[in-house]
Amino acid sequence: MNKPEILDIFKKIQAGEISPEDALLKLRAEPFEDLGYAKVDHHRELRRGVPEIIYGAKKTPEQIAGIAGAMLNKGQQLILITRLSAEAAEAVGKSLPLKYHKVAQIGMIGEMPKPSGIGKIVIATGGTSDIPVAEEAALTAEALGNEVVRLYDVGVAGFHRLLSNLELIMNAQVVISIAGMEGALTSVIGGLVACPVIGVPTSVGYGASFGGVSALLSMLNSCASGVSVVNIDNGFGAGYLASIINHPCRA
Amino acid sequence: MNKPEILDIFKKIQAGEISPEDALLKLRAEPFEDLGYAKVDHHRELRRGVPEIIYGAKKTPEQIAGIAGAMLNKGQQLILITRLSAEAAEAVGKSLPLKYHKVAQIGMIGEMPKPSGIGKIVIATGGTSDIPVAEEAALTAEALGNEVVRLYDVGVAGFHRLLSNLELIMNAQVVISIAGMEGALTSVIGGLVACPVIGVPTSVGYGASFGGVSALLSMLNSCASGVSVVNIDNGFGAGYLASIINHPCRA
Amino acid sequence: MNKPEILDIFKKIQAGEISPEDALLKLRAEPFEDLGYAKVDHHRELRRGVPEIIYGAKKTPEQIAGIAGAMLNKGQQLILITRLSAEAAEAVGKSLPLKYHKVAQIGMIGEMPKPSGIGKIVIATGGTSDIPVAEEAALTAEALGNEVVRLYDVGVAGFHRLLSNLELIMNAQVVISIAGMEGALTSVIGGLVACPVIGVPTSVGYGASFGGVSALLSMLNSCASGVSVVNIDNGFGAGYLASIINHPCRA
Amino acid sequence: MNKPEILDIFKKIQAGEISPEDALLKLRAEPFEDLGYAKVDHHRELRRGVPEIIYGAKKTPEQIAGIAGAMLNKGQQLILITRLSAEAAEAVGKSLPLKYHKVAQIGMIGEMPKPSGIGKIVIATGGTSDIPVAEEAALTAEALGNEVVRLYDVGVAGFHRLLSNLELIMNAQVVISIAGMEGALTSVIGGLVACPVIGVPTSVGYGASFGGVSALLSMLNSCASGVSVVNIDNGFGAGYLASIINHPCRA
Amino acid sequence: MNKPEILDIFKKIQAGEISPEDALLKLRAEPFEDLGYAKVDHHRELRRGVPEIIYGAKKTPEQIAGIAGAMLNKGQQLILITRLSAEAAEAVGKSLPLKYHKVAQIGMIGEMPKPSGIGKIVIATGGTSDIPVAEEAALTAEALGNEVVRLYDVGVAGFHRLLSNLELIMNAQVVISIAGMEGALTSVIGGLVACPVIGVPTSVGYGASFGGVSALLSMLNSCASGVSVVNIDNGFGAGYLASIINHPCRA
Amino acid sequence: MNKPEILDIFKKIQAGEISPEDALLKLRAEPFEDLGYAKVDHHRELRRGVPEIIYGAKKTPEQIAGIAGAMLNKGQQLILITRLSAEAAEAVGKSLPLKYHKVAQIGMIGEMPKPSGIGKIVIATGGTSDIPVAEEAALTAEALGNEVVRLYDVGVAGFHRLLSNLELIMNAQVVISIAGMEGALTSVIGGLVACPVIGVPTSVGYGASFGGVSALLSMLNSCASGVSVVNIDNGFGAGYLASIINHPCRA
Amino acid sequence: MNKPEILDIFKKIQAGEISPEDALLKLRAEPFEDLGYAKVDHHRELRRGVPEIIYGAKKTPEQIAGIAGAMLNKGQQLILITRLSAEAAEAVGKSLPLKYHKVAQIGMIGEMPKPSGIGKIVIATGGTSDIPVAEEAALTAEALGNEVVRLYDVGVAGFHRLLSNLELIMNAQVVISIAGMEGALTSVIGGLVACPVIGVPTSVGYGASFGGVSALLSMLNSCASGVSVVNIDNGFGAGYLASIINHPCRA
Amino acid sequence: MNKPEILDIFKKIQAGEISPEDALLKLRAEPFEDLGYAKVDHHRELRRGVPEIIYGAKKTPEQIAGIAGAMLNKGQQLILITRLSAEAAEAVGKSLPLKYHKVAQIGMIGEMPKPSGIGKIVIATGGTSDIPVAEEAALTAEALGNEVVRLYDVGVAGFHRLLSNLELIMNAQVVISIAGMEGALTSVIGGLVACPVIGVPTSVGYGASFGGVSALLSMLNSCASGVSVVNIDNGFGAGYLASIINHPCRA
Repeated sequence: MNKPEILDIFKKIQAGEISPEDALLKLRAEPFEDLGYAKVDHHRELRRGVPEIIYGAKKTPEQIAGIAGAMLNKGQQLILITRLSAEAAEAVGKSLPLKYHKVAQIGMIGEMPKPSGIGKIVIATGGTSDIPVAEEAALTAEALGNEVVRLYDVGVAGFHRLLSNLELIMNAQVVISIAGMEGALTSVIGGLVACPVIGVPTSVGYGASFGGVSALLSMLNSCASGVSVVNIDNGFGAGYLASIINHPCRA
Repeated sequence: MNKPEILDIFKKIQAGEISPEDALLKLRAEPFEDLGYAKVDHHRELRRGVPEIIYGAKKTPEQIAGIAGAMLNKGQQLILITRLSAEAAEAVGKSLPLKYHKVAQIGMIGEMPKPSGIGKIVIATGGTSDIPVAEEAALTAEALGNEVVRLYDVGVAGFHRLLSNLELIMNAQVVISIAGMEGALTSVIGGLVACPVIGVPTSVGYGASFGGVSALLSMLNSCASGVSVVNIDNGFGAGYLASIINHPCRA
Repeated sequence: MNKPEILDIFKKIQAGEISPEDALLKLRAEPFEDLGYAKVDHHRELRRGVPEIIYGAKKTPEQIAGIAGAMLNKGQQLILITRLSAEAAEAVGKSLPLKYHKVAQIGMIGEMPKPSGIGKIVIATGGTSDIPVAEEAALTAEALGNEVVRLYDVGVAGFHRLLSNLELIMNAQVVISIAGMEGALTSVIGGLVACPVIGVPTSVGYGASFGGVSALLSMLNSCASGVSVVNIDNGFGAGYLASIINHPCRA
Repeated sequence: MNKPEILDIFKKIQAGEISPEDALLKLRAEPFEDLGYAKVDHHRELRRGVPEIIYGAKKTPEQIAGIAGAMLNKGQQLILITRLSAEAAEAVGKSLPLKYHKVAQIGMIGEMPKPSGIGKIVIATGGTSDIPVAEEAALTAEALGNEVVRLYDVGVAGFHRLLSNLELIMNAQVVISIAGMEGALTSVIGGLVACPVIGVPTSVGYGASFGGVSALLSMLNSCASGVSVVNIDNGFGAGYLASIINHPCRA
Repeated sequence: MNKPEILDIFKKIQAGEISPEDALLKLRAEPFEDLGYAKVDHHRELRRGVPEIIYGAKKTPEQIAGIAGAMLNKGQQLILITRLSAEAAEAVGKSLPLKYHKVAQIGMIGEMPKPSGIGKIVIATGGTSDIPVAEEAALTAEALGNEVVRLYDVGVAGFHRLLSNLELIMNAQVVISIAGMEGALTSVIGGLVACPVIGVPTSVGYGASFGGVSALLSMLNSCASGVSVVNIDNGFGAGYLASIINHPCRA
Repeated sequence: MNKPEILDIFKKIQAGEISPEDALLKLRAEPFEDLGYAKVDHHRELRRGVPEIIYGAKKTPEQIAGIAGAMLNKGQQLILITRLSAEAAEAVGKSLPLKYHKVAQIGMIGEMPKPSGIGKIVIATGGTSDIPVAEEAALTAEALGNEVVRLYDVGVAGFHRLLSNLELIMNAQVVISIAGMEGALTSVIGGLVACPVIGVPTSVGYGASFGGVSALLSMLNSCASGVSVVNIDNGFGAGYLASIINHPCRA
Repeated sequence: MNKPEILDIFKKIQAGEISPEDALLKLRAEPFEDLGYAKVDHHRELRRGVPEIIYGAKKTPEQIAGIAGAMLNKGQQLILITRLSAEAAEAVGKSLPLKYHKVAQIGMIGEMPKPSGIGKIVIATGGTSDIPVAEEAALTAEALGNEVVRLYDVGVAGFHRLLSNLELIMNAQVVISIAGMEGALTSVIGGLVACPVIGVPTSVGYGASFGGVSALLSMLNSCASGVSVVNIDNGFGAGYLASIINHPCRA
Repeated sequence: MNKPEILDIFKKIQAGEISPEDALLKLRAEPFEDLGYAKVDHHRELRRGVPEIIYGAKKTPEQIAGIAGAMLNKGQQLILITRLSAEAAEAVGKSLPLKYHKVAQIGMIGEMPKPSGIGKIVIATGGTSDIPVAEEAALTAEALGNEVVRLYDVGVAGFHRLLSNLELIMNAQVVISIAGMEGALTSVIGGLVACPVIGVPTSVGYGASFGGVSALLSMLNSCASGVSVVNIDNGFGAGYLASIINHPCRA
């Protein structure tokens, strides 16, 4: 419920078309919306034509299928389910037309939208083991209407691989830098590009990598400007954030 | 040195205007630039008209004055010095026309540019104690050509203060959310707005706040999408990142 | 053994009905009780009519059945077994009339008492994944004679869901706020209500949530007054504490 | 603004006494209150006659004096300022009739209220060094209308001191248990009493006490039921929570 | 090789019964012993009549059987194998006369010695779950010639159980206090007895117990004198240390 | 109050010499003692002739002088004050005949007792910087009636220094091993001797020594048997423990 | 591509044998090499005749076989695959002539080179459980052309075993010291030898060993000079580093 | 005392020139040396002509002057004192001809030796603030006879500065890479060079740099081979290690 809608209700009270008691009830029934807070409307505007997202972890296949079914009924064109295990995907797939991306552990119902952002999102990884997180980011960004360039296995141990792709990175609107172990890739990219860099530490590594903490700290302390960080292994969060940066409100 | 410039050198070799040995020397002398990597040029394009930034911490007043003086000689129009103590500011101010912002510990030489971003940057803090970090972010963003809206002391303990400013937050292009202690403000804002939210944990708090770690973890684990995090107390980093989000390359 | 009982023993010594040696023995045999410390009596008074609780984790089904059987023999009307796995429940259920609540991992023998507290206990969770901990708290509180209001999945990412239930929360005598990830829900509720808020961090989350540590720190550092915290995933402890707050000794 | 007030506004719209546009404005001007959320009113009811609290740390004497002065103008009868250094107290005391409690670092303006709670709050400390935190809790509780029993230096190293005061502890409505080092006192008290126990870990100790972390963990893991914990050294938070437990809404 | 033996070798050189080259060789062949360092001899004196101990974890049944067999050949009267899984015990038991203590995960070959210490070792645990660690300590101490008194499940949550056994604890030569969770038992015992108390934190607990770290820190910070600590779950270490305290060299 | 004394009271009740009410009062007045718990008596017996110890940190000179004065009045022959700063020592020295050991930060009133233990306590340190902690341990042990052998600066970096003193270490009844940095000395000594080894990690070191945590962990994980650990820098605790090991109850 | 090669390209441009566009293309195709950075060539020179290494963890058998096959096609003489599980080894072995070292989890294709270093590498372990890490180091070093001396199970608990092998250690060019638990072995060796010592903490241990962190900290804080550390369990890294120390560029 | 010397003693016993008792005494008097362990001799050989090093932290000026004076008496040609404060330097300088390097906090007595290593040691830092640690490393290495190349302020934020110096780095025999914050420089250098890289994390940074822990973890997890790490800020250790790598025993 946005400002005009609230005014509309008030005018209906004034016109005697609705009683004050009913107006109050309406406010409670559709909670925040009834109070006219912009947020919900803003979200709706934002989400129009973009997929609603279901976090699949710790939900049963029945719950997931139920939520997705309700969305389909509302006319949702693309539904994204993250952290969806192969078993859950198979179960959900029995009742719904699910496409499953195994590496990214993402399920989708509906068609990918065309890219609508102002530029490209480059997704770089330090190694091969980071690819599952990267694909979660990539599919999320694509599902939200972005053109994604994948640049995998360009970590600093084989540094020339990154340098030989500099032009590609330089042309990004946003870079998602994904790395485990020491996470140095993010600082290096941050020192090379002028656009926002989203660091995603991964739990790849052993010993003193502490399940991604080492990479996380490394990225948080990056001496390069323009770098921010999301949670360990949070490919979805990075893809989502990159998308809203790539879709500025007034661009 | 960009691609056309490299090709130009090569053509000069071809035309005999420059010897191969001299070309190699040129490559070494202006290291990366000579090799045509876009980064440097990109940075220069980016930085044109915007201030060069000096990190003042752990530098002597002499070093700071020296670097700033060299910049002035190059025609730099606005110089920003962060983490500048009052003592150092006084010393630098003797030889250079420095304006000093005590709360933010920022020194500036030159005039603030006019806002050139596509929208506004809202900077919200949980409490009064977070204001120094917020001002570092605000002045950085303003120095980089952004319109900044300050919204201080709107933490969740007095929640209605935030709710009464929702429209203001909803209209932001980027929100910088700055909070110590439990850092819940960032998640709450992330749950309300549709634009990117940059969380800045602060070292405000005591006991189990562990100098900002509690707020940092809170923000990293935000259940709201669109949130990323910079280092504890890193107001400058947040202001810089917000600015490049607010100045998309192709907007 | 309370004060009158001790005096009674002393009078029996005085009257020659019991020898000093036997009195000493009696003191040793029922140790603390013989000394008349209020604690035991107090506990007995407290527990009268309320279930004795068995912590089921790391106990064998035989041990659990043995303890419960002894309680039944003593006339215990309601027995609560927490952290009881489905396998153990099945084994215990063969010899005793056990009702098993799978989600909460709680087994019960006997009937729930009627609510006897001075108000309602509201149990709010940030998400769906926190429900097992919430149900452990809810069933514990109900078994101890409390009316419980469940308010699940009202985390700050979908903030309007909480706001639309404010009246309900405002009327609570105690609120148990259960959340994983960044645990911001607890601070937000703490900023809204006037009654005691018991925070229960959960191990829900990934990466830098560190098995609940992030939520724990967040709650400990809550800038809202009236908030205290129990151990990660300790639904039982929260339900127990809420009950004794809801049953003040002299209310 | 509560429910009747909202209905009143709506009826005024209906009666043509106020235009819908003005109603919307009113909603924005007094933000959350205008929307009739109970919280604010609840808080006001709660706070009537009780002191408003100022957190003095990181505020200048001018800021503190300004806030306190505004409160006095509003007719506030008792003002509590926590974490107030002796220097700041002296400065504030020049313009306002401040009483300063040095050990607790608390300043007060106005008279202490009479106890209005349903029982007594017992505040126990492990040692002499915990007394500053205990006094912060005690004065806060007294200022909020509670009778406080101080029981200092009863740690488990000299265990008989606690045992000889058992009757006193047994009669408490709430116990605040304050201890540093290994914080065992809280578990021991939790094993003895039937009422809520609020654990306050203190930063007293050295080496592996890690500034209170050891005591904090000890209390969080208490095997006794009915124990919850607040932040390290947070005497104010414990006193506040104890007070609202001792003033149940419907008792 | 002790001092007299070295002198003996030297005298043999002097007497021409052994060449200097052979003496040097002898020194190298039985390294430290040849040099007469007391340690080896001391150990041999100590170990006379007591079992040689094999740490079974991460050893194959073949390795364990091999080492034990060699010991038997040397006339070892009692062999103790700690951290021996049931599977490994079964395999070892096929070739050797092994008695297996399942709860303590200890295997033994040979007969227990008679107690030879100067007093009794009391082993107290906070709960039932700590018993495996306690039994490791108890059997180790018994195998090394000590009389052990088991006092299980006397944690501070049911405090009177400990108090009713005070006389027993008071008479100990050494107390081993074993507890998980908050580990308060060790401090409480330390505050009651005059003899050495060896704290053994266990990994029993959940959430913020961090696998025994909470109990470990609690014990290290014990405000009671006479308490020292061994590694988490290190029942063997505690039993061994208690034994050498109970067998003073010159008692 | 010990068992005979309790029996005596009971007999007096029986004989009508004391009323039951007075008996109960007596029990409350001298709390735990009145109940005859052995602890107090045991402690008194233990402490007879040995110094009462005052922990001087965070106590004012007035408090320290007051406590010490009361002890002197009771006929205490030797008073030990640990963690006593030079300033506090000077203040206390004005009213009492205090001897101050600056390096150990220990003050003493009265004469050292003659050694009464069954053997010698060897105190070894890794380096020169560990000496203050070592002296705290040494003076404590001496004040409690032990012969102490100081063996300073024998860390593993100059390994031959330790080896050349092996005989001395081999003859100890207890060894206190004090080291910072990596704390390897304790494991090495533990591998060489047969008597109990008390490890005292010190806060000596920098960087990843984390104020003694590295040495603490090293000692806790010692692969040598017979080693236990006290808190970082806790020289007093080590000296006290060594003394009670060196004074076995029945030796 | 080294300096002469770049000059050669430039001369070809000059001579008209290659167009500037093709030169640029060539630079991009063989990225860093085309720009003449010495690194690649250096690596090639280094690697000539030595095995290329594949990190097998988190790679599928198909990926491993594919990479190894490509290497074989390029004429690679020895291929080393680390962290190769037995299952993966079996799968890879079906298509390639793989020799599998089960303990070290290393697979090899081709023949071991003859030792070409300037000295011997001694690999010492604290215990038997550290051998898998040691063998990873040993086989890596041997595959890179080094003579390796294995010295297993010489930890400080049985100290004479190390001392009896001193001459062997003294003659090493590099020592790799591998230990878990408290990791004291590395400091002890560091205090004995004059050559570089590479410490490898292992995850062997329990409780407060924290998966190798205790040993890691111990080694980082070594008071002996000449010691450096690699990641926990990183046998490969230690073997590789020892090899390049044992093959100095200009020796 | 080396092998021939031991044989010599034995022969003297054989020849009756020395009694066995005197031989034993001699062994004890010059402890380890008397037993012929190579270590001492090795050290002496190693140290001939190189400076003996004094760790100045936590030593008084008198102690430092005393040790240095004794060394001078033994004919030591160059004495190095690390971690020497300006105040201590001034005090030591009064009695000894000390040269003080303020930035590195190193004092020296005597002349620097000529470089005797097989190559150059390159010392690179990420920023200006790392220079004190770098100078400690550089002066240590120079004092031990190495040619040092300083390459300061080449961190990844201004990446081209490092790339433009690649040839210099490529020619190093050892590289010491010194960086705070995220420490990415070490991984990047490790990915570029073929020689050993010694990482020195520094405590430079703020917030989540945790006094160097972030850089330390980053370096330990380096995905580049050939990298090892020393303690935070341990410039001396890095310089010492680099020197012994640069002086291989048999080069």
